Amino acid sequence: MFTSRPIGFVNSPYKSTGDIPKGLGAKHEADGVLAILPEFEAGLTDIEGFSHLIVIWEFDRAHGFELLGTPPSDNRAHGVFATRSPRRPNPIGLTIVELRRREGVELHVRGVDMLDGTPILDIKPLLSIIPEEKLRRGWLAEAEARKPGD
Amino acid sequence: MFTSRPIGFVNSPYKSTGDIPKGLGAKHEADGVLAILPEFEAGLTDIEGFSHLIVIWEFDRAHGFELLGTPPSDNRAHGVFATRSPRRPNPIGLTIVELRRREGVELHVRGVDMLDGTPILDIKPLLSIIPEEKLRRGWLAEAEARKPGD
Repeated sequence: MFTSRPIGFVNSPYKSTGDIPKGLGAKHEADGVLAILPEFEAGLTDIEGFSHLIVIWEFDRAHGFELLGTPPSDNRAHGVFATRSPRRPNPIGLTIVELRRREGVELHVRGVDMLDGTPILDIKPLLSIIPEEKLRRGWLAEAEARKPGD
Repeated sequence: MFTSRPIGFVNSPYKSTGDIPKGLGAKHEADGVLAILPEFEAGLTDIEGFSHLIVIWEFDRAHGFELLGTPPSDNRAHGVFATRSPRRPNPIGLTIVELRRREGVELHVRGVDMLDGTPILDIKPLLSIIPEEKLRRGWLAEAEARKPGD
């Protein structure tokens, strides 16, 4: 067990959850800044060399959890571990962003889907990918197939 | 802030950190089981449809953190946020596994790199990928280039 501590905060154009594109075909191309606390700056050494970062953050405005819920991308309920619902047993969010540039403790990134002010817990380099032909997307692919042209 | 709570534990062939393949060219193809606690079983609904899962877990046997460290894949120090070091401000690990089958609360997966008994904090479906031609891997690609044939 550990108690989470922010290593920084997200500057995002999204001030409330209603602002965040959701559901099928939602594009996450918003620019934002990962503002890292000065005490952690040394931890950013060499991060400039990576094109994409995994940002682990805290759903700090979600309360409690729900094991079954209906995501915006479907009209059927799914298990929380098969969705990106914010109402999780551990309120941990994850976003892959493109690193555009670093300015000191500021990482300028594309692809934020967090609320402004979201606490950042960790950043990891994206090191490898799953080939597209090997990826299956379960209920999401089915929901997309039911709603073509979104 | 939140206090982490396990949603389950990893059954892995790795009993100590020395057993885990590390460094350049390390393959993570070990089979393991994500044994979810019965109280969270409903959260697994529909997870069978996904080929790959993002497992978020706790480095429960790491102590403290180090902002600069030398990973096994290089002989140079890098910032913790540019590496997968276990000694992180928030001791959060992340592994993408292939879901082979589900048996009740047991998710049989391939690709574990966690120690046996590792607490699982969250599971998310892998929904999208970054095209390989857009991915840059920074110091890791450079370290690989210096050690060909690993």
